Amino acid sequence: MDKVEMGIEEQHEMVAKAFVNHYYHLFDTNRAALATLYHHTSMLSFEGQKFLGVEDIGRKLTQLPFEQCKHFISTIDSQLSPFGGGILVFVSGNLQLSGEEHQLKFSQMFQLIPLPHGSFCVQNDIFRLNYG
Amino acid sequence: MDKVEMGIEEQHEMVAKAFVNHYYHLFDTNRAALATLYHHTSMLSFEGQKFLGVEDIGRKLTQLPFEQCKHFISTIDSQLSPFGGGILVFVSGNLQLSGEEHQLKFSQMFQLIPLPHGSFCVQNDIFRLNYG
Repeated sequence: MDKVEMGIEEQHEMVAKAFVNHYYHLFDTNRAALATLYHHTSMLSFEGQKFLGVEDIGRKLTQLPFEQCKHFISTIDSQLSPFGGGILVFVSGNLQLSGEEHQLKFSQMFQLIPLPHGSFCVQNDIFRLNYG
Repeated sequence: MDKVEMGIEEQHEMVAKAFVNHYYHLFDTNRAALATLYHHTSMLSFEGQKFLGVEDIGRKLTQLPFEQCKHFISTIDSQLSPFGGGILVFVSGNLQLSGEEHQLKFSQMFQLIPLPHGSFCVQNDIFRLNYG
């Protein structure tokens, strides 16, 4: 057997991991570019505040009140969404803001939706710090 | 105006809150009944372990290695899913196991899918403890 068959579960787990690596790498190195991962119906809930669409979400992400941060990912869980080939991604980890001594714990979930040319965009994004 | 119009955002936030109250009340008082909230294609990821369908999920939830627990909910976020009228619900909080001194922090996400007769079932469920 030359052909390696990949199960649908392995496929969406691979997409989820690749997305998570890409997302937080962009967040930590070129935050303004994150907006390209969203589209006009995308939703972001950030610490309870709601944002809709590329411009609104991009503005929020670039105007966060810190210069730099670094994410450390602890867990990535993914599941298929029942409609439209979407993938639910659930992330937990820590983030370190520049100039701050202590790391902050966070959890974040995404729904990724497939685009016609084979990539994915972020349809849903919910972020919460996990306070102590 | 006698009729009170409720926006679609208020509607799904109300469903999310009612679901969260119902789910954790059942979890803390009658855990075996939780299985009725799932259906045959439902998925649960519990601390990285995957379970599929009512029986498998119900068995996992009833066989968790503690008798009783109490959930304290800190935040509930919800967004509409783009297909099929689904609602994404993201919960953070603490749980207290009987006989344990300290509470544990957790995050959990659900995708709720509407049923024909007006109620919802849990299609996706991802649970993680947030370790310190």
